Amino acid sequence: MDREALFQQIKKKNSYLCIGLDTDLEKIPQHLRSTADPIFEFNKQIIDATHEYCVAYKPNIAFYEALGPKGWESLQKTMDYIPKGLFTIADAKRGDIGNTSALYARTFFEYFNFDSVTVAPYMGEDSVKPFLYKDKWVILLAHTSNPGSSDFQLIESVVTGRKLYEEVLLKSQRWATPDQLMYVVGATQAEKMESIRAQAPEHFFLVPGIGAQGGDLKMVSQYGMNAQCGLLVNSARAIIYASNGQDFAQRARQEAVNVRDEMARHLQDYYK
Amino acid sequence: MDREALFQQIKKKNSYLCIGLDTDLEKIPQHLRSTADPIFEFNKQIIDATHEYCVAYKPNIAFYEALGPKGWESLQKTMDYIPKGLFTIADAKRGDIGNTSALYARTFFEYFNFDSVTVAPYMGEDSVKPFLYKDKWVILLAHTSNPGSSDFQLIESVVTGRKLYEEVLLKSQRWATPDQLMYVVGATQAEKMESIRAQAPEHFFLVPGIGAQGGDLKMVSQYGMNAQCGLLVNSARAIIYASNGQDFAQRARQEAVNVRDEMARHLQDYYK
Repeated sequence: MDREALFQQIKKKNSYLCIGLDTDLEKIPQHLRSTADPIFEFNKQIIDATHEYCVAYKPNIAFYEALGPKGWESLQKTMDYIPKGLFTIADAKRGDIGNTSALYARTFFEYFNFDSVTVAPYMGEDSVKPFLYKDKWVILLAHTSNPGSSDFQLIESVVTGRKLYEEVLLKSQRWATPDQLMYVVGATQAEKMESIRAQAPEHFFLVPGIGAQGGDLKMVSQYGMNAQCGLLVNSARAIIYASNGQDFAQRARQEAVNVRDEMARHLQDYYK
Repeated sequence: MDREALFQQIKKKNSYLCIGLDTDLEKIPQHLRSTADPIFEFNKQIIDATHEYCVAYKPNIAFYEALGPKGWESLQKTMDYIPKGLFTIADAKRGDIGNTSALYARTFFEYFNFDSVTVAPYMGEDSVKPFLYKDKWVILLAHTSNPGSSDFQLIESVVTGRKLYEEVLLKSQRWATPDQLMYVVGATQAEKMESIRAQAPEHFFLVPGIGAQGGDLKMVSQYGMNAQCGLLVNSARAIIYASNGQDFAQRARQEAVNVRDEMARHLQDYYK
């Protein structure tokens, strides 16, 4: 999917919501556990209930890998089930090089047909290049918002005065265009979001880990949006585990609608 | 496996060779391709031929993932086949956090029963902690030797004067002991290997990407060894693809023996 198509979908749906399919056997409703493929059955019902209100799905690959070959099959069925036109993200955070990364690219882009894959920058350009396919995307870790993000990402270069995550933002823009490259940018403070947007004005940001409807979404939208929206805001647990009863899909839909409604307001504010 | 057991094995076999099982359907001998599980059949014959001359096997996870559920099964069979006492490394370079990393740990340590997994440090402490199991190992990327390694790993901190990879080496030593943590250290120049060893005197280093018998092995051994050897030197293609004919296993054995012989000399030099 190209950038324009993604933006068109965002405008049409009034949503830049990405739903994280962090599907965990231990967290899905009891009544699904006796089905032949509980993981897929759960995803299927979540997708049915939410696909009108989100623009992307992001299976967290760890959850599928942890189940061995069976998990791989559930992932494949899930990918086949996601309606055409929705953007798909393999949240795999792969960070290898050369031939190895080329194989990861083949797995996620060709075998599973994902639109994008999350990638870690530590090994540099060789970690990014193998993922540059036509109409596919690398989503590179830039500034995450976990506690450990400050361990290395904030180290400031004696040469450039820039922090590590800023070096990642700037250097990687030489390797790929905003039509092939997005960044993972955690919801930190407003000033930081504003400065990151200034350093990568055209790129889409995948923003994980924000409370589904808290002040964070407002801040991220206010300081992170660009002329083509430029945001995919991920919510996983708050939506997919809104209930663990018979009504889980209905409740997931309601949560997705609520987020979509708030996103519609932010889009209107920005594009008014 | 604990550090002492690994060292005992190294002394017994006079080898610190790790064989990379980067098993590629397109590179294995023609006559294996018609077997039911060519990947496993190849690994099995390689393991039979080489396990007396190496102390570790390192399946490169990308090669198995790329084959979908079938690849996962080949990996499982390979792990079941590797003789007890050999150290196993899941070369997966995972770099996520919290719950997600805990699932990767479960996959590689519990499901497949690997002794260790390679991990990327970009997200900081949260990326390492979930992999701290009893008698299991995190092998953290420190200084790699690919061309892109200089993109970020050499950024020098304005505060400490240390390079990013040195920050990784020093900070991560607060998170785990030398009995739980190894480092990926590429074969660069002698001075660098010497300085890295000084910064992590007790840790094992996994050294990939060196020519099987070139001067690199001598340099790495001379400047990287410590009182418990402290080195696992990986060779993949030079051994497993030494021939792609009927004699592939025999030739792999010969290559492994050659490397072992050179390693035996380096061990003798160090411990004389």
